[in-house]
Amino acid sequence: MAFEPLLETSVTHWHGHCDVAVVGFGGAGACAAIEAADNGASVIIFEAASASGGSTALSSAELYLGGGTSVQQALGYEDKPEDMIGYLMASNGPQASLEKVSAYAEGGPEHLEWLKAQGVPFKNSEYPHRAMLALTDDCLLYTGSEKAWPYAEQFAPAPRGHNLQVAGDNGGPLLIEKLTQAVGARDVDVHLEARALRLIIDKHGPDNCVVGVVVREDMDERCYRANKGVVLCAGGFVMNSQMLDQYAPSLKRATIPIGNPNDMGVGIRLGQSVGGATLNMHEGFISLPFYPPASLTFGILVNSQGQRFINEDAYHGRVGAYVLAQTDPVYLIVSVDDYADYETASYLGAPVAATGETLEELLSELSLPVAATTNVIGRYNADASDGIDSVWHKSADWLKPLVPPLVALDCTPGRGAFFPYFTLGGLDTRVSGEVLNHSGEPIKGVYAAGRTACGVPRRGDGYASGISVGDATFSGRCAGRAAATKKDE
Amino acid sequence: MAFEPLLETSVTHWHGHCDVAVVGFGGAGACAAIEAADNGASVIIFEAASASGGSTALSSAELYLGGGTSVQQALGYEDKPEDMIGYLMASNGPQASLEKVSAYAEGGPEHLEWLKAQGVPFKNSEYPHRAMLALTDDCLLYTGSEKAWPYAEQFAPAPRGHNLQVAGDNGGPLLIEKLTQAVGARDVDVHLEARALRLIIDKHGPDNCVVGVVVREDMDERCYRANKGVVLCAGGFVMNSQMLDQYAPSLKRATIPIGNPNDMGVGIRLGQSVGGATLNMHEGFISLPFYPPASLTFGILVNSQGQRFINEDAYHGRVGAYVLAQTDPVYLIVSVDDYADYETASYLGAPVAATGETLEELLSELSLPVAATTNVIGRYNADASDGIDSVWHKSADWLKPLVPPLVALDCTPGRGAFFPYFTLGGLDTRVSGEVLNHSGEPIKGVYAAGRTACGVPRRGDGYASGISVGDATFSGRCAGRAAATKKDE
Repeated sequence: MAFEPLLETSVTHWHGHCDVAVVGFGGAGACAAIEAADNGASVIIFEAASASGGSTALSSAELYLGGGTSVQQALGYEDKPEDMIGYLMASNGPQASLEKVSAYAEGGPEHLEWLKAQGVPFKNSEYPHRAMLALTDDCLLYTGSEKAWPYAEQFAPAPRGHNLQVAGDNGGPLLIEKLTQAVGARDVDVHLEARALRLIIDKHGPDNCVVGVVVREDMDERCYRANKGVVLCAGGFVMNSQMLDQYAPSLKRATIPIGNPNDMGVGIRLGQSVGGATLNMHEGFISLPFYPPASLTFGILVNSQGQRFINEDAYHGRVGAYVLAQTDPVYLIVSVDDYADYETASYLGAPVAATGETLEELLSELSLPVAATTNVIGRYNADASDGIDSVWHKSADWLKPLVPPLVALDCTPGRGAFFPYFTLGGLDTRVSGEVLNHSGEPIKGVYAAGRTACGVPRRGDGYASGISVGDATFSGRCAGRAAATKKDE
Repeated sequence: MAFEPLLETSVTHWHGHCDVAVVGFGGAGACAAIEAADNGASVIIFEAASASGGSTALSSAELYLGGGTSVQQALGYEDKPEDMIGYLMASNGPQASLEKVSAYAEGGPEHLEWLKAQGVPFKNSEYPHRAMLALTDDCLLYTGSEKAWPYAEQFAPAPRGHNLQVAGDNGGPLLIEKLTQAVGARDVDVHLEARALRLIIDKHGPDNCVVGVVVREDMDERCYRANKGVVLCAGGFVMNSQMLDQYAPSLKRATIPIGNPNDMGVGIRLGQSVGGATLNMHEGFISLPFYPPASLTFGILVNSQGQRFINEDAYHGRVGAYVLAQTDPVYLIVSVDDYADYETASYLGAPVAATGETLEELLSELSLPVAATTNVIGRYNADASDGIDSVWHKSADWLKPLVPPLVALDCTPGRGAFFPYFTLGGLDTRVSGEVLNHSGEPIKGVYAAGRTACGVPRRGDGYASGISVGDATFSGRCAGRAAATKKDE
C-alpha cells in the first residue's frame, strides 16, 4: 500500500531527531515551525521542493482576517466577530465548522499582529475598488461577497482582505520571504528537496502513535524521529488527477488547477495511512475571474435558458461555482461601453461570442432562446433604470441598463474562459490541528494544517480571496503550538 | 475507538464458524447469502432487526433493470446496453463508475431471470403512466428522466422500472418475502436480533485480513469466524444524524430521512475500521414527490427569482435535488383544472400558498418579483401554445398554457412539503464487492454491497426509482459470489 506507515521497530537507524517534524514549507508549514520553535520545540521542516513557498508563494496572499484587526480599526471599520462568524457560517454552508470559524474570527486581530511581528508589512490603508487583488501597496479590500446579496442584509459587511504592503501581485512571495526569514531566525532545521514518504508509528492498531517520518532526500530514504509529533502541511490535492477523479470529479469542469506541483495530496494520504478521516473531499474553489475590468459587473450573466442565475456583483469565486452549475452555454452580456479595457486588463480569457448593434443582432448569433432572453434583458433594463434589481438583487452600484452596441463573452466551461480551481477537502482536525479518526478521536502524534486539513473554507460558492492563506497560516500556528506543547501521557 | 477491529489472537472462543458471514438481511444481504450458498459456501446472516427486510422491504422495489430484459423484449422495447450505460453515466455525473454501470447494464437481463428463479414474480405488461409507482400488478414503467430533457435527445429512452406482479405498493415486502424464502431453502443460518459490533482481523497493520465478526445477540457478545469473508450489507447512514452532519449536511435541507431505523452507517463504519475508503459521502437521493396527480406536471416550478429552474417532466428525484439548490421560496404554479385530486391523491403535502382568479391576484399573495414572474409565465404560456418549451424543453406532452383560476403550492423546503431523502455514499468497492483501501487495493476478507457501498446510483439529480434496490440486489449477488469463490492465497 502506498504511504503505508512504517513500524518503529523496523527502523534500523534514525537519521535525525527532533521534537516536531513539519511536512511542507508553505504558509502553513512555516507558521507551524515558528510556533513550535517558539514553544520550545526543536523542529525540522521537510519540503519536497527546492525552496520554501508552496502554494502560498503563488497566491496573492490577501489574508482574510477580521473581527476588528488593527487595520480595520485604523480605517474606522468596526468588524464584530459575530458578523464575521455569521458571514462565514452562512457562506460556507451547512458543512461549515462553527468551532473553526469562531476560533478564526476571534483570533484574527491577534493573528495579524503576530504576522507583523514576523516582519510581514501591512499599511493602514484601503483599496476601495472591486478587484481580484490590489495592485497597490494598500491593505484592506473586500475579497468576498460581503456587500452582495444575500449576505449584506444579514451581516454587517466589512472589508477583510489584508493585502501586504507591496505593489503588484507580490503578496505571496513577500509573505513567504518574511516567514522564511522568521523560520531561519529560530531553532528550525530546514531540509529542502526532502519528500515525505511514510509516517513512522510505534505499533499497528488502535492507540498507535506517530513517532516520525520517512523522507527521501539525497537519493536516500531516511528515518527521522519526531518526539512530539508530525505536522502535515503539504497542501491539497488539486495536482493529483487520480485523486480528483476519485473525490472531486465535478471540479474538473473547471479548466486550470492552481497551486504548486506538489499539491498531490501527500499530506492527506499520510494522514489517511494512520487512520485519519477526511471531510468535504468533493468541494473546491472555482473562479470565473471576470473583473478587472470592474465595469463588466454592469453586465449580466445568462445561462442556456437565457436566465440570469446570480447577482453579478458577487465574488468571482461564487460566480465561478454558479457558472459550473449551469447547463451550457453561459454568456456575459455587457454594453460595449463597459467592455472597457477587457482585452488588455482581464484575466478571463473568454472569447467574444457575439456582438450586436442591436439586441436582436446579438441574440441572433447566440445559442439562447430569443424571446425568453429578450424578456430577461428587458426586465433587467427596467430594473436598472429604477435602481432596484427585483430578481437577483444586484447592488444599485452595479445597475445600469444594457445599451447597444452589446457584446457577449462566452463563459461556457471549456470554451476558453479561465476557470482556476483548487481543492477544499482534507483531513478532519480539531482547531488544535490534531488529526481525527473516523470516531472523531485524535490520533496521537499527528497534526494537519492548511489545505491538508478541512479548515475554515469549505465551499466554492462561499469562498473569499485570502481565506485559504489566512486559514493556512492560522491553522499552521495552532498545529505547531499544539504539537510542541503536547504533554507526555 | 468505536468499531475498533478485534485481533483474532484475542478471541477466546469461537461461537460459530462459516465460510461467509453476511451483515444485514435486506435486499443486498439476502442476495449475497443466496449466491454464496449456491457457490458452495456455508453462510451465516446477522441481522440487527427481528426480521429480514431492511430498507428494501420498505421500498416499492421497482427494480431498475435494462439492457434488454425479457419483459422489455416481450413489450417490444429494444433497450441496448449502450443506451442504458450512456444514460446512467450522464445522469450520475462525473462521479459515475463506468465499471459498475457497465456491469449493471450488461448484467440486467440475467439478473431479472435470476430474481424470477428465486420466485419473484414479474408480468409481461406495462404501466404507461407518469407515476411514482405502479399500483397495479403491471411491470414496466419509466422511473427516471429517460424521456425528459436533456437525456431523451442523447440516449434512446426505454422504461426500466420493473414492478413486481403485485397490486398496491407492495413490491418491497413481496421481494423480501421471496428472497427470504430462497435463503431459507439453502444452507444459510439466519441470526436475527444480532448486531454486528466489530470485525475480527488476523493481525494489525498492512495485509491484515478480516476473518470474522463480533456480534451482540442473546445479551452476549459472540465471535464468529468467517473463513472466506464478511459481506457488509447493512444499508446507508441516513438514520445517523451525526454522520449526516459530518458527511452530508446539505441533505438535511430535505425533511424526512427514509429507510429502516438500522440505516446507521454501521456497515460503512465497519469497513472504515479496517482501512476501507469511502466515496461520494455528500450525495443523496432527494425527492419532491409532486405526482400523482400527474396533471401537476402541467404546472411550472418557480424559485425566488420567479424563474423556472427545471423541466417539470423530469423524475421527482431530479426535481427534488434541483429544488434544494434554489434559494427560498419555491412554488409550483398550476391551473386549478390540473390541480385535480391533489388533496387526496398526492404524497406531496405542500400547503397551498395562494390562489387567484387572475395571475395578478395569485402573484399578489406570493413572495416573488411580480414583473419578472409575469414575464416568465407569459413566455411559458406562449411556448405551451406553440407546443415547444423554448426555455427548459419540457416535453410537448406536458405543455398547456396556465389558465386562471390558478393555485400555487408552497414547495419551499421546511414549509410542509414532503422531501424524503437517503444517502448515496459508501465504501469504495470493486464490482466484485471487494472493499478497497485508500490506495485502491482490496482489503482481504471484506466485501460490501447495497448502500453500504458506493454503487451505481451516485447523484440525487440523476436518480431513478428502483436503482438502489436494483443495485443492492445485483451488487449483493456479486459480493456473495466473490466471497464464496475466493481462492486461498
